[in-house]
Amino acid sequence: METIIRTKVCDSFARQALLQTFDARIETMSEGQITLSAPIQPHGLQQHGVVHAGLTFALGDSAAGYAALTLMAQDAEVMTAEMKINLLAPATGDRLIARGRVLKPGRRLFVTAADVYAVTGSTETHVAVLQGTMVPV
Amino acid sequence: METIIRTKVCDSFARQALLQTFDARIETMSEGQITLSAPIQPHGLQQHGVVHAGLTFALGDSAAGYAALTLMAQDAEVMTAEMKINLLAPATGDRLIARGRVLKPGRRLFVTAADVYAVTGSTETHVAVLQGTMVPV
Amino acid sequence: METIIRTKVCDSFARQALLQTFDARIETMSEGQITLSAPIQPHGLQQHGVVHAGLTFALGDSAAGYAALTLMAQDAEVMTAEMKINLLAPATGDRLIARGRVLKPGRRLFVTAADVYAVTGSTETHVAVLQGTMVPV
Amino acid sequence: METIIRTKVCDSFARQALLQTFDARIETMSEGQITLSAPIQPHGLQQHGVVHAGLTFALGDSAAGYAALTLMAQDAEVMTAEMKINLLAPATGDRLIARGRVLKPGRRLFVTAADVYAVTGSTETHVAVLQGTMVPV
Repeated sequence: METIIRTKVCDSFARQALLQTFDARIETMSEGQITLSAPIQPHGLQQHGVVHAGLTFALGDSAAGYAALTLMAQDAEVMTAEMKINLLAPATGDRLIARGRVLKPGRRLFVTAADVYAVTGSTETHVAVLQGTMVPV
Repeated sequence: METIIRTKVCDSFARQALLQTFDARIETMSEGQITLSAPIQPHGLQQHGVVHAGLTFALGDSAAGYAALTLMAQDAEVMTAEMKINLLAPATGDRLIARGRVLKPGRRLFVTAADVYAVTGSTETHVAVLQGTMVPV
Repeated sequence: METIIRTKVCDSFARQALLQTFDARIETMSEGQITLSAPIQPHGLQQHGVVHAGLTFALGDSAAGYAALTLMAQDAEVMTAEMKINLLAPATGDRLIARGRVLKPGRRLFVTAADVYAVTGSTETHVAVLQGTMVPV
Repeated sequence: METIIRTKVCDSFARQALLQTFDARIETMSEGQITLSAPIQPHGLQQHGVVHAGLTFALGDSAAGYAALTLMAQDAEVMTAEMKINLLAPATGDRLIARGRVLKPGRRLFVTAADVYAVTGSTETHVAVLQGTMVPV
């Protein structure tokens, strides 16, 4: 993977204020794939004490979007056109991991997917699947 | 609308830490409908300086969920099973408004929808539509 | 609405073999909106004797797509990029009606929606809601 | 996999009139997974001469649903609650193959997914991804 693209993804990520609000970070990336993580903290929870679907969505959607950005032209930015999430299990534990990937790159549309896991110690629970469309802008 | 249900919705909303992180509040509610709002603030933005899709999703999803909760049994809580968002326009301005409604109540599943608007002064821009499923727990 | 666009929509519809398989037809159209119908017949049912989700989807998706086509350039055709359906009730009766509309036209993407109803005599039952993205090609 | 479940799935499939309309059949099944196929024929096409999204959806949705049915109680039937499809490429060739799988079984909801491929000779093209919810009834 080219350094210039890696740098572009990291720079874009660093400017995502909402992701900073939840202390999210990039774990690994390669062409068409990226892994993000965020600690599970009190200000990201919902009324039952588990992670709010909005945070699970934000991390999964960002993983899908940045996976697409790794394959886009150097001067392109990425925007979500649409995204669907199915929640599989309540998310509790130490941190969230989101793995995004590109299913189909395109000139106008990128079809993407992401899986989100809640991690407690060394145990990963699959908590959400996302499928959606990213557009280069 | 019964006071006991109204109180239950407000109590549940007040315990949603993520929504408090973004200073969201309930504007109005009636049976099967609710309107939420949140100011547009720096910590909810993405890399292009507009509202992050994760926040737009969180407010819309919450509006859909609380619309469903107004019709659920008194001892029920609400969880998102799945939700889909289509983004219509970049969200900038003073605040977000999300209007949630129940399309079809059920014993096991509630089909819901929400519209999210970005408000600048007295101008509303339609920024997102959501459609998804809530379950009573 | 211009005659040339109306003719183009009708010509395109007439070439949709799958819709002919189910005897679907255009009821009414205007800019950004269209209503389709199809009789409920044995070869469109599923294992419980109600309309197969595939037919409900096909009619709703087509209504969304042709609603978009009414607003596209004269030389454009329309393709579904993605579509989501929530089923609200079993579809039984005399015929299906699908009402499609454009939520947001665009240069590259059209966000669309459709409602599908099952009609028995003069009673309409709302059986499905669809939300998705059309692209001009 | 128990014979009684296998028989139940085959019996249910045989009563799906819409799938018979398109000569669909079961290729293989195991617990939580099933593969369906259908020849690409003139009466399943859309206006550009490729497979109609409604047929691609019907086969993918059925694969997801029957994957779920392999894991349900013996007296349960399966219904689609909601399903989302992203189309990846035009479907042309000899036949469609749909592979369905269960992502998360549950007492009330089954989260499922399916991939649809168009096959020409020995070449498979990935034409659609589906993600959605099945309910036992």
